[in-house]
Order: sequence, then C-alpha cells, then structure tokens
Amino acid sequence: MSAPNSPPAEWRGGTVWLTGLPSAGKSTIARTLAERLRSGGHRVQVLDGDEIRAALSAELGFSKEDRDINVRRIGFVAGLLADHGVTVLVPVIAPYAQARAAVRDLHATRGIPYVEVHVATPVEICAERDVKHLYARQAAGELSGLTGTDDPYEVPVDPDLRVDTQHHTVDESVRQVRALLTARGLS
Amino acid sequence: MSAPNSPPAEWRGGTVWLTGLPSAGKSTIARTLAERLRSGGHRVQVLDGDEIRAALSAELGFSKEDRDINVRRIGFVAGLLADHGVTVLVPVIAPYAQARAAVRDLHATRGIPYVEVHVATPVEICAERDVKHLYARQAAGELSGLTGTDDPYEVPVDPDLRVDTQHHTVDESVRQVRALLTARGLS
Repeated sequence: MSAPNSPPAEWRGGTVWLTGLPSAGKSTIARTLAERLRSGGHRVQVLDGDEIRAALSAELGFSKEDRDINVRRIGFVAGLLADHGVTVLVPVIAPYAQARAAVRDLHATRGIPYVEVHVATPVEICAERDVKHLYARQAAGELSGLTGTDDPYEVPVDPDLRVDTQHHTVDESVRQVRALLTARGLS
Repeated sequence: MSAPNSPPAEWRGGTVWLTGLPSAGKSTIARTLAERLRSGGHRVQVLDGDEIRAALSAELGFSKEDRDINVRRIGFVAGLLADHGVTVLVPVIAPYAQARAAVRDLHATRGIPYVEVHVATPVEICAERDVKHLYARQAAGELSGLTGTDDPYEVPVDPDLRVDTQHHTVDESVRQVRALLTARGLS
C-alpha cells in the first residue's frame, strides 16, 4: 500500500525539459500542457526561465559558462520537485548539449524520470514570432548573444521527442508531448 | 473532493527553517524529525546547507550579502517544494534577520505555511560539539568569518519556537518542533 499522501504509482513525478530557440514555442507548450495535466489531477510546476534566473542566478550572464551553470541549477531544482511526485515542465533554451546531458545524468543517478523535448522551430519562424522582441533588437544591434543568431544553439542529436511547431498547432504539439509522457508512465 | 494525488488537506506542505549557530544541532533535529514525518506518510525534504550551496550558490562566499543571497535562494526552493505538499526542513544558519524576514514574506505572499525555529544553543556548547571542526580552526586562526565567533549572528527576536538543546535531548527537541507543526496543521 502506498503512503497516504503519495500520488498513484502510475503518476510518478518527472522532468520534461523543453529546449529550443527563443520564441520557439516552449513556454506556450509548457503552459498549455500544465493546464491539462493539472486538470487531470497532477501536481505540475512550470519553471519559467526568466523567473528562475531572477530567483537563483541573478548574478549570472549569458556566457557559455554562465548559461551552463544556470541550466544545471534549474535541473537540480527540477529534480528535487520531480522526486516528490511533481511533473516539472522546463521551457528553458539550454543551448549547450553538455549541460543538457548533465541534467539528464543527474536525474538518471537519482532514478528520476527525465524527458528531453526539442521544440524544433526554425530560427526564421522564431524571428517572425519574436514574442520578447529579442530578434528585432538583435537585428538592430541593440542586443548581442542571442541564441540562434549570434550565439550558439547545439541542436539535440537524440531528444526523446522533436516537436515541429511550424507545421503543427499548439494543441497538436501538446498532444505529442503528452503522448510521450503517457508512454513513459508519467501521464 | 481533493485532486487524486493531493495529500490529505490536514497535511499541507510548509517550510520549517531551523536557524542557529554552527553545531547548534540544526541538522540533527532536521534529520530526526524528517524520519518521523516520513514514517507518518509525509513527503519530506531536508535542504542541507552545504549541499544546496554547492548546487545553487557555488560562486557565493560568506559576506553578509552573499549569505543573504544564499538564504533567499534556499527560501525560494523551499517555497516551491512546500507549495506542492512537501514538508521542507531547512537546517541552515541564516544569520541575518532581514534575509530570514524576506523568506518568511515570500512564503506569506504565496500563502505557504512557514515556521521559524531558533535552535538556541549557546556558542560555548556549539564550540564544544564542533561537529565540523570549524570552531577549532577559527580558534587556531585557520579560518575566519565563523558565525557566532568573528561573524554576526542576529538572534531571532520572535521565532515561532525556540529550542533549548543544552537542557533537552534530541528527542525532546524534535518533539517540541513536531508539536508546533501539529498545532499549525502541518503534522
């Protein structure tokens, strides 16, 4: 018999990292998926990149080293939450493969489910959407170090799922991620 | 009706911050209390000071500013966990009143239960116990900035509970903390 406040065994916590370029659609997918999982009775936490940076990494910039430290910190916090039965959605760029691998390893070491979803929106589409007006500012020379333009993005070679938001609606993308979670016993 | 994976309403999550000098007994109380709460079916997380520093604040030192940033980060993570029904025990010195108040305020703003326990062991007793050999090293001039000796500790003026480990056993101290949690609907 499970402890009284444990979720059902089939609803384990886990971390779902949505990696991709700025304006790829990571946060939109995370928020929509979060709502659906919550309405299904799951405990869900979205770790928003900007919010977490302010809370945990205010001193860090956007060099490779600083981005990697930030990604590892977020991974650590996600792991803590997931270990307590929370489905943690992380819509954070995470441009470097090594830091992404470190987060995956941290979860594996602790036996916590981990899923990497590449939100694979082409940079031209991202620059058109430009939700935060970053691409426009980069093009105007007001900003540098923008992932996908003048800063690297290492495309995931073997993600658990690659979502094509260019040719699918948000609803379809969310369904794809959710189907993966179901297949992994997380939804 | 509560969601299927919610803990019973009477077992809400919350943060229990155990503040006090090095070797005051904070971690001993936290570990012992954690075991008892877990065996009662609670989800419990102990946020160990050294471990959290390595994971989230490796670049920080022990100046007032750095200590305060570290305390606020731990408070943020504790709040995230507590908000998902976890009882979070934080055996971390937290020497400055302002940072402790900031953590309390963060919890209050989000409606998350928060309890401050002052593990009020006199410095002479702490220096005798000296679990991590910090007092000896400070006395030998090998280390400086040790809270309670050559670095400030602002004694909590109005903690939710003050535990006197000098005149009580670990078991008695743990019972006192647990009684407070019960009174607050957290145990």
